[in-house]
Amino acid sequence: MLDTVKIITTKRNGETLSDESLAALIEAYTCGQVPDYQMSAFLMAAFLRGMDARETTTLTGCMLRSGKVLDFGGASGRTVDKHSTGGVGDKISLSLAPIAAACGVRVPMIAGRALGHTGGTVDKLESIPGYSTRVSPNQLHRQLDELGVFMIGQTDEIAPADRLLYALRDVTATVDFVPFITASIMSKKLAEGLNGLVLDVKSGRGAFMQTEREARHLAEMLVSVGTRFGTPTVAWLTDMNIPLGRTVGNWLEVEESIACLCGQGPEDVMSLTLQLCGEMLVLADLADSPDSGVQLARNAVESGRALDIFATLVAAQGGDTSVIENPSRRQRTCLPQVVRAPEMADRFVTDLDARILGIAATEMGVGRTVKEDLVDPEAGIVLHRKPGDAVQPDEPLASFYTRKTGLSAQFEQAILSAYSFGNQAPPSRSVLIDRFTDTGWSNAA
Amino acid sequence: MLDTVKIITTKRNGETLSDESLAALIEAYTCGQVPDYQMSAFLMAAFLRGMDARETTTLTGCMLRSGKVLDFGGASGRTVDKHSTGGVGDKISLSLAPIAAACGVRVPMIAGRALGHTGGTVDKLESIPGYSTRVSPNQLHRQLDELGVFMIGQTDEIAPADRLLYALRDVTATVDFVPFITASIMSKKLAEGLNGLVLDVKSGRGAFMQTEREARHLAEMLVSVGTRFGTPTVAWLTDMNIPLGRTVGNWLEVEESIACLCGQGPEDVMSLTLQLCGEMLVLADLADSPDSGVQLARNAVESGRALDIFATLVAAQGGDTSVIENPSRRQRTCLPQVVRAPEMADRFVTDLDARILGIAATEMGVGRTVKEDLVDPEAGIVLHRKPGDAVQPDEPLASFYTRKTGLSAQFEQAILSAYSFGNQAPPSRSVLIDRFTDTGWSNAA
Repeated sequence: MLDTVKIITTKRNGETLSDESLAALIEAYTCGQVPDYQMSAFLMAAFLRGMDARETTTLTGCMLRSGKVLDFGGASGRTVDKHSTGGVGDKISLSLAPIAAACGVRVPMIAGRALGHTGGTVDKLESIPGYSTRVSPNQLHRQLDELGVFMIGQTDEIAPADRLLYALRDVTATVDFVPFITASIMSKKLAEGLNGLVLDVKSGRGAFMQTEREARHLAEMLVSVGTRFGTPTVAWLTDMNIPLGRTVGNWLEVEESIACLCGQGPEDVMSLTLQLCGEMLVLADLADSPDSGVQLARNAVESGRALDIFATLVAAQGGDTSVIENPSRRQRTCLPQVVRAPEMADRFVTDLDARILGIAATEMGVGRTVKEDLVDPEAGIVLHRKPGDAVQPDEPLASFYTRKTGLSAQFEQAILSAYSFGNQAPPSRSVLIDRFTDTGWSNAA
Repeated sequence: MLDTVKIITTKRNGETLSDESLAALIEAYTCGQVPDYQMSAFLMAAFLRGMDARETTTLTGCMLRSGKVLDFGGASGRTVDKHSTGGVGDKISLSLAPIAAACGVRVPMIAGRALGHTGGTVDKLESIPGYSTRVSPNQLHRQLDELGVFMIGQTDEIAPADRLLYALRDVTATVDFVPFITASIMSKKLAEGLNGLVLDVKSGRGAFMQTEREARHLAEMLVSVGTRFGTPTVAWLTDMNIPLGRTVGNWLEVEESIACLCGQGPEDVMSLTLQLCGEMLVLADLADSPDSGVQLARNAVESGRALDIFATLVAAQGGDTSVIENPSRRQRTCLPQVVRAPEMADRFVTDLDARILGIAATEMGVGRTVKEDLVDPEAGIVLHRKPGDAVQPDEPLASFYTRKTGLSAQFEQAILSAYSFGNQAPPSRSVLIDRFTDTGWSNAA
């Protein structure tokens, strides 16, 4: 019989749990045999005492096996996906998935919704009129075979233990703990039945991991767990102090992604998308090195094949392709409100706080402040000036869109407070910081 | 509105909680507004991060106020009680309460049941045929006025929050934590509306606090909380490596207590009882010093007044006084089984493990191994030899009483394993180790 108190005590005392004990606990919890109040004591004990890579792998495995593991094998081509730990203006998946598919990768992407101050790919996709993020299993297989890609939302069959545990973590202050975050991410990604996984681990004030140390730890744990499951995994540590690209919102980010698929996206979004695509191509055995993968990905953009795939994907999932062909056709009911540069002597934008913008955007309607909120497809922020850009007093810094009338002054104030100015342009920084695989970091930490 | 997650996060991060936050949490939990799963996460966070004396006092106050606080004021004399943190063979309360009452202290004793491997005063009292540990409030007042003492069990009205929290701690591995133990003890004792409190804090393998360091910490916390509530509190740190007296059981310990009340108890039980009584007399303003209090207590035993009070108490609470006057009159249905000294060259008992004996006695029926167990009034162990006693091979070491037929060989083995032998008598040790009041320890720690 399961001795739950003994398992809690072991972890409380800082000892490592056996695979059997941990698995028995999680399995019993998932079938309702261990009550929430014991699991939450365990979660807090683990949070404060730590869990090692092996325990994290065991936890991941239990959560993975609590639900269905998809199998897209049999057909030609390898399945590889990308996952981001979440950021502000992070629309990478929207262009990355069709680019990778255009290069021959099979991309079975199950994406998430906005969480906290960060955006969600599913919410962005749903800003395309008609696009459905719920698709029948038959259609998933067909899309993957014919098109090489689907992009859907979480289903009830995938890792139900993760949903149960996440709901409990959310109300017991045990969310931001690397082993739990790792198990949550990896159980859902491994349930896609992947041949390879690329991770975008974000670090900085706009990320959940606010220090590079935490982000590196998360990257290491994620790759370690992927490797232990036999799924080749590569992690990029990327900067999330400044929003990615020039838009933060749902439809706004789809528009910017279409620009990327036309080869006209902002430099930071383009370089990150192509780099992560390059990694996917290597894991799919379609490129010898990330660099040659990047080149193949760039070709897929330049030839127009990636944009074609995106349009076909949108059509397959019920979306209106006319707005993909011409984004300005999408009906707008929200007027832009312009935030202008203040009077001052400084000539350059030197910094832009992604967290402040993420929180403001969420409140504008990009995300949810309570679970029941509906997201607003049109809400968000367009950044006319970013760090490095020159600016004159009264020039537009940003525009924002919201239906929250009455909060405009507050949003304007928030956006202004996110900006810093100075007399010199800051040194330009790459969004790509470092790369981690099972052989270690590329750069010294 | 109460932000439970914020309070849990504060404690999780190792910060000190404000009185308001902690009180709001406990009060909301007690009325069912905070679910068990959040409280258990809080309990584990507090367990691992600690709580200071002020937080412990606030917690105690919340638990105290969750129920009824008795008031025996108005009549003559001060109310003083004694509480022990629990040991093996700890029958002190049975003789102490009538002795203190015989000296003029009002003793409103609400006692506990067997817990873990330790005995409970209520279970011992209930081994007296007819004795009721539940008495009407009117009778409690009358007994206190006329006799100076009642001895009852916990009632539902006293500190209900403690029962709720204890039940949760028990299943979440958060029992053995000094601030929780302190709040549990003090909320129940302060609910007796005391003018003073004497604590017997046990240290050693037969106690819950197995190291002297932990026991000293508990003594300090208990006295600190009592003092903060304006209740003068004295703690004695006492040794619980070896069982107290020569009996471990329910009726067996009542018999030994009657011997104590006749002035014929074992030296360790007598000295501890008289010392704690002496402290109670000082707190009741009936003696100038513990030493003169000890003398008054001894007089009450020698005059026979204490035994008279005990017999009158038993009669008042429905018990059969004939077995108090002559313990051999109590019907026995259980035969003693004798454990004899093994063949060996050694001549003295050098040590006797209280924990082993406590666990064995509990399994014999003295305590409960699961909540639903009924205790057996006759079960237990008589120690014919204790450390310092000479012994020859095949001489009786101990006798035990149990209805668990089939386990006799196991019990004999356990008892034998509790004994150590050697060629020299060990140095005699006082059970009294040190004394703590709000002015500090008497001996250097």
